[in-house]
Amino acid sequence: MTLVAQDLLFPTDAASRSIARDLFAGIKDLPIISPHGHTDPRWYAENALFPDPAQLLIVPDHYIFRMLFSQGVRLEDLGVPTLDGTPVETDGRRIWRIFAENYSLFRGTPTRLWLDYTFANLFGLEESLTPANADRHYDAIAAQLQTDAFRPRALFERFNIEVISTTDGALDDLSWHRMIRESGWSGRVIPAYRPDAVIDPDFEGFAVALDRLGEISGCDTGRWQGYLDAHRNRRAYFQSFGATATDHGLASAETANLSAREAEALFDGVRSGKADERQRALFRAQMLTEMAKMSAEDGLVMQIHPGSWRNHSPAIFKKFGRDKGFDIPTQTDYVRALKPMLDAVGTDPRVSIILFTLDETSYARELAPLAGVYPALKLGPAWWFHDSPEGMRRFREMTTETAGFYNTVGFNDDTRAFPSIPARHDVARRVDCAFLARLVAEHRLGEEEAHDLARDLTYGLARRAYKL
Amino acid sequence: MTLVAQDLLFPTDAASRSIARDLFAGIKDLPIISPHGHTDPRWYAENALFPDPAQLLIVPDHYIFRMLFSQGVRLEDLGVPTLDGTPVETDGRRIWRIFAENYSLFRGTPTRLWLDYTFANLFGLEESLTPANADRHYDAIAAQLQTDAFRPRALFERFNIEVISTTDGALDDLSWHRMIRESGWSGRVIPAYRPDAVIDPDFEGFAVALDRLGEISGCDTGRWQGYLDAHRNRRAYFQSFGATATDHGLASAETANLSAREAEALFDGVRSGKADERQRALFRAQMLTEMAKMSAEDGLVMQIHPGSWRNHSPAIFKKFGRDKGFDIPTQTDYVRALKPMLDAVGTDPRVSIILFTLDETSYARELAPLAGVYPALKLGPAWWFHDSPEGMRRFREMTTETAGFYNTVGFNDDTRAFPSIPARHDVARRVDCAFLARLVAEHRLGEEEAHDLARDLTYGLARRAYKL
Amino acid sequence: MTLVAQDLLFPTDAASRSIARDLFAGIKDLPIISPHGHTDPRWYAENALFPDPAQLLIVPDHYIFRMLFSQGVRLEDLGVPTLDGTPVETDGRRIWRIFAENYSLFRGTPTRLWLDYTFANLFGLEESLTPANADRHYDAIAAQLQTDAFRPRALFERFNIEVISTTDGALDDLSWHRMIRESGWSGRVIPAYRPDAVIDPDFEGFAVALDRLGEISGCDTGRWQGYLDAHRNRRAYFQSFGATATDHGLASAETANLSAREAEALFDGVRSGKADERQRALFRAQMLTEMAKMSAEDGLVMQIHPGSWRNHSPAIFKKFGRDKGFDIPTQTDYVRALKPMLDAVGTDPRVSIILFTLDETSYARELAPLAGVYPALKLGPAWWFHDSPEGMRRFREMTTETAGFYNTVGFNDDTRAFPSIPARHDVARRVDCAFLARLVAEHRLGEEEAHDLARDLTYGLARRAYKL
Repeated sequence: MTLVAQDLLFPTDAASRSIARDLFAGIKDLPIISPHGHTDPRWYAENALFPDPAQLLIVPDHYIFRMLFSQGVRLEDLGVPTLDGTPVETDGRRIWRIFAENYSLFRGTPTRLWLDYTFANLFGLEESLTPANADRHYDAIAAQLQTDAFRPRALFERFNIEVISTTDGALDDLSWHRMIRESGWSGRVIPAYRPDAVIDPDFEGFAVALDRLGEISGCDTGRWQGYLDAHRNRRAYFQSFGATATDHGLASAETANLSAREAEALFDGVRSGKADERQRALFRAQMLTEMAKMSAEDGLVMQIHPGSWRNHSPAIFKKFGRDKGFDIPTQTDYVRALKPMLDAVGTDPRVSIILFTLDETSYARELAPLAGVYPALKLGPAWWFHDSPEGMRRFREMTTETAGFYNTVGFNDDTRAFPSIPARHDVARRVDCAFLARLVAEHRLGEEEAHDLARDLTYGLARRAYKL
Repeated sequence: MTLVAQDLLFPTDAASRSIARDLFAGIKDLPIISPHGHTDPRWYAENALFPDPAQLLIVPDHYIFRMLFSQGVRLEDLGVPTLDGTPVETDGRRIWRIFAENYSLFRGTPTRLWLDYTFANLFGLEESLTPANADRHYDAIAAQLQTDAFRPRALFERFNIEVISTTDGALDDLSWHRMIRESGWSGRVIPAYRPDAVIDPDFEGFAVALDRLGEISGCDTGRWQGYLDAHRNRRAYFQSFGATATDHGLASAETANLSAREAEALFDGVRSGKADERQRALFRAQMLTEMAKMSAEDGLVMQIHPGSWRNHSPAIFKKFGRDKGFDIPTQTDYVRALKPMLDAVGTDPRVSIILFTLDETSYARELAPLAGVYPALKLGPAWWFHDSPEGMRRFREMTTETAGFYNTVGFNDDTRAFPSIPARHDVARRVDCAFLARLVAEHRLGEEEAHDLARDLTYGLARRAYKL
Repeated sequence: MTLVAQDLLFPTDAASRSIARDLFAGIKDLPIISPHGHTDPRWYAENALFPDPAQLLIVPDHYIFRMLFSQGVRLEDLGVPTLDGTPVETDGRRIWRIFAENYSLFRGTPTRLWLDYTFANLFGLEESLTPANADRHYDAIAAQLQTDAFRPRALFERFNIEVISTTDGALDDLSWHRMIRESGWSGRVIPAYRPDAVIDPDFEGFAVALDRLGEISGCDTGRWQGYLDAHRNRRAYFQSFGATATDHGLASAETANLSAREAEALFDGVRSGKADERQRALFRAQMLTEMAKMSAEDGLVMQIHPGSWRNHSPAIFKKFGRDKGFDIPTQTDYVRALKPMLDAVGTDPRVSIILFTLDETSYARELAPLAGVYPALKLGPAWWFHDSPEGMRRFREMTTETAGFYNTVGFNDDTRAFPSIPARHDVARRVDCAFLARLVAEHRLGEEEAHDLARDLTYGLARRAYKL
């Protein structure tokens, strides 16, 4: 096989494959809409060169180092920084060689598809990675990274990104976003409001964060109403930089809708640090509903992605910190959990909530039935561990029959791995075309309709759902 | 594509498709057995003309209006009646136009397949619905509905229905069934005993319903034994009208098997309205076992379909009432829940219990292992949200290897949408033939065996399982 | 179809099928590694003739008699022994005839594939079983069973088994294994340490078993440290007979990691019979972690397979005892349950834990993410109810993208049905080749890589994971 085959991921019977090819030809060059991502706005602001291949492609990518770690490679040897100052490998070439020696571990994974795509289409390499060509690949990539064509803005344009959203904490001053705007560059980079650290009492430094939130918003975050006003203030600030969405990641999807008096008392307990575990959970639940109500006021689209047990290994968390591949999905309930919030805003035409899940058992049982009736709900795409060919296929197979296509929102790349963005969209587009091709080949959908849908799944739905 | 392609839903590779065609040709004209449905017996009794296209096809079909509602269409504009007297659209043509404008929302859903089938095969329309042809379709359908060939009995015969069961409350006097019987018409329409309203203490008007049950049965429903006797009395009454089955829909599958004394005390609490939530749940659980024991006595097949959170939105429930698309599946346990009942009757050869689920995670894990060993258990078909090509395929893929085909009961259309019955059976037959064709093409099953099975899945199993 | 088609279980489109054929041709003759099975070591030790066809193939196979029982056949009529002395059928031919009359019940099940394979390849029969040929099949099999070529050792060699592990209780003196070793026969048969009966306080005769454990180990099993030492002693004894693994089957995956003092107190309660239900569960949980810690010391690979509700029907358990088809899977949590054990040993390079599940919902959500990052964890193959074509396919589809292939351990036949071993490995090899062929045909994997993987999934992974 060539490194990325023309028919990658298309159905294998001739009739379906031909339909998939046609569908894909119609949408493969559409611009990328990336409404939910985690790239660093500093990149676009400063437009500096990226460092070496290992620092760009391996060290920050938990998909990669978690797999290597699972097979006995030490994180230190992959250059993953430690919190306690333990020295780690800094020689990019040595890291790269370990990676190359273990590249076969990624057979059958999306990482493999993304990397091969990136090797071929971004760096012009014609062979997959092997121990034998590791140094040549490294050198070829390293050389290109030193050229202006590989600066962030040039890549942004080459990737045909129409708009990308970053994810930014509530306390962020958005100075990189300001710098981008003031630079005169035409690339559209917008922030998203991610207030977890000032909503979740279990976050490290919660009390200090609330003080800071008060300072920058000019609101009295010592009191419930002032705290809510501070959120309103920050949301408006984010909107002034083009934000159209908020983003909420919590362990569960629990929501609550307390009376104003109850909520105030709960806030006082949380604020003073006296709230117990149940009260802290209830506060997070209440705040999801508060955020939904603010969305009714200011029109920001709300994204919720619950169900990850963060930092499952305390030893790794202690030594290396967050986001080291030890976030493990758990079973997640939506029907009971979301009810208080849905009772409050579920049929409000001003509200738009995009739900993600790591628990596929909820697709057909809970999420599609909920999104298939509540006007305020839409389904985010197959996410994280499920941002993969089989994951995306299951998403369509398990949600379409109940929620249809139009209660979904297109593809989100959800990544901080900037060079992988085109690869991820390419895989998603191919899988959607393959799914549509099957429907057409089985006479469940007209071919013209499938072309319409392919465009919507690629471009239209994301634009509309995120108000872009 | 023509509106309903000959090869609809068949596998796409040539060899498998050819096998599927052969299998389907062998069974497509078999009569319809509809042992679990919700059509109105009054239709067959009075044999009146159906009203306009919107009142027939849209207003009563929660699959349709829930999807439109999820995308912002108001239920009032679709003519869905309100409880509070708020006026709603009554002009069928206007409702129809809204539907036509939004028909693309149903792409990829079973509703789309059923409607296209109905347009083509019932009303002779050659195009799918579009805003442009909406009025023409409306007129064509409306005109036909005014002819005798579209009266309920004529359709029943045209649909080749051998027997259909309605679903009737325990208090129903079955007068429509009596009228059918006395009319001399040869169509076989039988009732099913659905006692939820006199078993579930949380049903509106439970106490009054029990009083009424006492009156019509002549039993003392103020006491436990009299209450049980009243059920026996009504079951016998239903059997005298041809009933072969009971039907039980509850939020959970919990069963109990209390001592006579405990059950009596529980009944007294429930009857007096003093029972708390746990006791009311326990009463429902106990009554499932009581119904199973009565089945051992009188031979009625017992159907259980748990796991729907009814009327999830209180606002919609208050304004529009039940069955408005807000019944959402929840995770459902069977292994623990059914144990008390199975301990009592699970190996009793006189008992036959058909289990349905909205929680597909239980197919391979719980339901197939249970039905694959307990003689009293069989699996109902993919149901409700899962009455769909992908849903039916998953059902076969996840149950067959453990429970085989013969612990399943064929297809149930489960619908109150009378004109959709042939479409639903057509889809089910096609999906089963497609599944069997794959087994044959993969050499897991002989072709002759597959023909046998196709006939059983279409006809034989339903007749035997429901004692028809 | 011939009884076992050349292309059995291969994809149906021509391109994929051709790839699958090539892959299968490359691995179909590789030796069988059977690291997790339940054959009786006595067979290999004594090398006696097997009894009649029914006693060999039907009476001990719960896959078979559970299906027959589910359709109304009495276990007594199948010769399944009773505990209370109720007489059962002893005429093998009569049992065989019942089986033949009901052979169609197995359509679509793995049992059907295994039996047809065994009929064809072991006994040279050219027709599938029918009522008409039942006696001829019986006679042909019976006659062959009386020949030396069908003695256990001859079959072992004919099956091309490189190594097989039995499963043996902690108190077993391994005398059959000793006899095998001393016989000079070259077949490699090793034990596995299965200490459930001396770890689970709810096992019948737990206290007596602990006394006996003390006697044979020379350790004081009246005290916590002595009890642990007794395990160490027995593990070493098993290792002296070639054991490389332990095996743990419990209702849940719960683990604990108590302080030495807490564990000691817990043991005292359990030992004296005073521990309550929660304490007994906690003891089982603690012992999983203790076993994992001992694995760090002695290098035995640890197998855990939780999630079966054993002996679900008390009536059947009372009359027929254990393993009568009434073990039903339940929902199983891993993320929370395994955490104490993983906190203790999850990143210890000396530890290797192989996890099995009966709850497929955990594949993509929990097991693949856990095995894809913890070096100590690997995933056992699709097991028990899921040791089937669809089950294995789902296993690969739901685990590969997150855990890759190399965090899985190849195929285990997990059977006491000796003659079915080649059939089970044949099915597994075919399904893996079919999966790989799809990846190749969809250009997700190179063909040469697929050949590598086919060999690893068939042979290499099992050898390495089990240190064979």
